[in-house]
Amino acid sequence: MALVNPHFLQLPNHYLFSEIAERVGRYRQRHPDADIISLGIGDVTQPLAPAVVQAMHRAVDELASASTFHGYGPEQGYASLREAIVQHDYAARGIDLSPDEVFVNDGAKSDCGNIGELLHTDNRVAVTDPVYPVYVDANVMGGRAGSLHDGKWNELTYLPCTEANHFVPQLPAQPVDIVYLCYPNNPTGTTLTRAQLQRWVDYARRHRTLIVYDSAYEAYIQDTRIPHSIYEMEGAREVAIEMRSFSKTAGFTGVRCGYTVVPKALKAYTTDGKPASLNQLWHRRQSTKFNGASYVSQRGAEAVYSAEGQEQVRRTIAYYMENARLIKQGLTTMGLTVYGGDNAPYLWVKTPDGKTSWQFFDHLLHQSHVVCTPGSGFGPSGEGFMRLTAFADRNRTLQALERIAGTRGKR
Amino acid sequence: MALVNPHFLQLPNHYLFSEIAERVGRYRQRHPDADIISLGIGDVTQPLAPAVVQAMHRAVDELASASTFHGYGPEQGYASLREAIVQHDYAARGIDLSPDEVFVNDGAKSDCGNIGELLHTDNRVAVTDPVYPVYVDANVMGGRAGSLHDGKWNELTYLPCTEANHFVPQLPAQPVDIVYLCYPNNPTGTTLTRAQLQRWVDYARRHRTLIVYDSAYEAYIQDTRIPHSIYEMEGAREVAIEMRSFSKTAGFTGVRCGYTVVPKALKAYTTDGKPASLNQLWHRRQSTKFNGASYVSQRGAEAVYSAEGQEQVRRTIAYYMENARLIKQGLTTMGLTVYGGDNAPYLWVKTPDGKTSWQFFDHLLHQSHVVCTPGSGFGPSGEGFMRLTAFADRNRTLQALERIAGTRGKR
Repeated sequence: MALVNPHFLQLPNHYLFSEIAERVGRYRQRHPDADIISLGIGDVTQPLAPAVVQAMHRAVDELASASTFHGYGPEQGYASLREAIVQHDYAARGIDLSPDEVFVNDGAKSDCGNIGELLHTDNRVAVTDPVYPVYVDANVMGGRAGSLHDGKWNELTYLPCTEANHFVPQLPAQPVDIVYLCYPNNPTGTTLTRAQLQRWVDYARRHRTLIVYDSAYEAYIQDTRIPHSIYEMEGAREVAIEMRSFSKTAGFTGVRCGYTVVPKALKAYTTDGKPASLNQLWHRRQSTKFNGASYVSQRGAEAVYSAEGQEQVRRTIAYYMENARLIKQGLTTMGLTVYGGDNAPYLWVKTPDGKTSWQFFDHLLHQSHVVCTPGSGFGPSGEGFMRLTAFADRNRTLQALERIAGTRGKR
Repeated sequence: MALVNPHFLQLPNHYLFSEIAERVGRYRQRHPDADIISLGIGDVTQPLAPAVVQAMHRAVDELASASTFHGYGPEQGYASLREAIVQHDYAARGIDLSPDEVFVNDGAKSDCGNIGELLHTDNRVAVTDPVYPVYVDANVMGGRAGSLHDGKWNELTYLPCTEANHFVPQLPAQPVDIVYLCYPNNPTGTTLTRAQLQRWVDYARRHRTLIVYDSAYEAYIQDTRIPHSIYEMEGAREVAIEMRSFSKTAGFTGVRCGYTVVPKALKAYTTDGKPASLNQLWHRRQSTKFNGASYVSQRGAEAVYSAEGQEQVRRTIAYYMENARLIKQGLTTMGLTVYGGDNAPYLWVKTPDGKTSWQFFDHLLHQSHVVCTPGSGFGPSGEGFMRLTAFADRNRTLQALERIAGTRGKR
C-alpha cells in the first residue's frame, strides 16, 4: 500500500495567493464590470529589456538549426552565465566567488523549497514573522514544522518583526539550526544594516547555524549603506546560502531564471559533528532532479549583464521605485502609516480603524476595487498590516491611490 | 548546528553520465585530435520544428511589450497547453482526462525526482533492473533505498529485465508500495504489450501500489499494438501517475517542458489506511515549490500540437527511427546481439567477447572513438550490455557504424 507523506496532510488547504485569487474571483463574478487594480501579488508588469528580448530571439534561432542547436545544458547552468553572475553581482562588490559556487535555476522559489532536501528532518528552523510563506510551507512538507496551533507551527521558531523592534529580528533566545532571512524583506519592504546582518553571521558561526539568505530584491536597494549580498559580511561564506532571481531584477517572472550560491566553505554536519559540503550535495541534488534552466531563459539572463541590459533594467527598477515613492507619499498624506518602499518594491501599511488584515483586504476590494495582500497571510505578526507592491503600471498605481483617497474621505 | 540529510551521504560520488564525461574528457586530453562520436547520452541533435520556433519567437515578442507581457503563469501550466495535451495525447486515444489532472513542468526529470516528496519514507520501492538512475538516486535521497552492497541498495526491490525473461519484469514476490515503470524502456529500448501492462495495473489495484509510469518515449512507438499511455489499461487512473516530456518528442532537451498526469481517482494512504488525493497534494507541492515552466517554452510546447507541428515532429522522429534501424541492422550484421530500437530510440547491445560493460565502453572509445553508455551503469542486470541511442546525426551514426565494423574485423 502506497503510504502518503504525513507532513503534507498537515498543510491547511489554502496557499495565501490562491485564497486571494478566490476572493477576487468571487467578487468579480458578482460585479463583472468592476475594474479591479491589483497592488497585491508581487508580479511585474513592465516588458523585458530590449537587450534580453534580442538575446532570447537569437537563442530561439540557434535552436532552429542543427549546426547551432543546444540540447541538454549543464544542470548547474551555462558557464558563461555563471561567470557573468560572479563578475557583475559579486566581484564588482569585492566578493570573490567561483562559478562552481553558483547554481543557475528556474527561479528562486524552486530552490527555496528544495534546499531543505539536503538537511535533516530534526533541524530547528527559525523564520522571521511575517515571512514569505514558501519557507514555512516547504518546512511543513519536510517535517520540520510540527503542527499548527493558533496560526503558529509548534516546532518553528518565530522571530517577530514589528513596529516595536523596527522590523529587525532579534537573535533567537534558544539556538536554531537553520534560519531564513530575506532582505530587502518580503513582505515588509524593510532592510538590515551591515551591522545588523553581521550580527546574524556571527551568531550563525557561533552556533553552526545555516542561514538561507534570500536577496531576490537586492536590485531595489537605493541606499549605498545597505548590503546587497550576505557575502559582504565577514565569514558569511561559511554559514550562508544566498538565493537570487532575475524575476524582479529583470522582469523574468514568466521567463524563469534565477540562481543559488552555495559556497564551498559552507558545511552542514552529521549528528556526530562530521562536516559535509553542501556545495557537493547541492550539485548532486541538481544533477539528479533538475535538468537546467531553459537555454532561451539563460541566454536572456546573460544579456541582463551586458552594458545595454544593465542600463535598461536599471531604468525599469527606477520606474517601479517611483511607484513605491508615490504610494508611500500618497498613503502617508491620507494619514496611513507606511513602512518599507525605500529600498524595496514592497510597502507595509498599517491597517486603519483597528481593522484586521482580511477586513481591510475586503474593504479595499469592495470600496476601491484595489487588491492588496493581507499581512496576516504572512504570519501572526503580520496581522494589522497589508502589503502593497510597486509593480503595477504607473497610471494604475495613481488610479488606485485616488480611489483609496476617495474611500478614506467616506469612511 | 545545521544537520545534513544523512541519506544524501549514502550516494556514491558519481552520477553515471558524469563518469562517462570524465572518461571521455581524459581520453580527449591525451588525444586532442580524436574525432569522437557520441551514441551515448540520450540527447537529441535535430533542430526544433519550425512551428515551435515560430511560436517561441511570438512568445518572446509578447514579453517585449507591456500590453502583451506575461509574468507569473499558473504553477500547473497554461490552460491552453493543458487542454491541448488532454485533447491530443489522451482524448485522441479514448482516454478521458481533465486538464486539472495534467501538471506542466520544466521536464520529466524534475518530477521523477520530486514526486517522492508526496510519499512516506517507509514505502517499499521496486525498480526494474536495468533502470534510469534518477528513480534510484531520488529514492536514496528520500531514505527509501537503504545502503549500497555490491551494487544493490538493500531496501529496494529489483525486478531483473534480462534476455532470459525477454526484458519483461516479473511481478514482485513480496508486495511493493511503489513501482517505477518506463515504457518504451530506457535503457533497453523494449516495450510491454497491453496484456503485460494490464497485469501490472491489476497487481497495483490488488496491493494499492502506486505505479510511476514514465512514457517519455511513447512518440517512438511504431507498432500499433503497444500501449502509449498506461491509462489505456482498465483501472490505471486509480493507481498510476504518468510522466511525459517534450524533450524526446519534440527536441525540447534544452527548451525544458514536460508534464505529469496525476488523476483525481489516484490515492495514497495514511498508515491507518485513510486515502489521500495525490492530485491535491501534488497541486500543493507545485504551488509551493515551483513557479511554472517558462512562458516561451510552454508556447513552444503548445505549437507541437498544431497540424504543422505534429507533421514536423513526426518527421524528426522518423529520422531518428531510421537511425535506430540502421544501427540495429549494422550491428546485427557484424554479429552482435541487439535488442530494442524497434519502438524506442534506444538499442541494448550485448557486449561481445565476454567483455564487461565498462571494458567495452573503453574499447569502443579507444578503438572507434565512439561513446556508448555502459549497461552496468543502469543496474546490476545491465552488466554485459551497452546502450546506444538513435539521436545522433545520420552521417555520424553511419560513420560510427563503419568504425565499429572496422574494429570488429581487427579484434
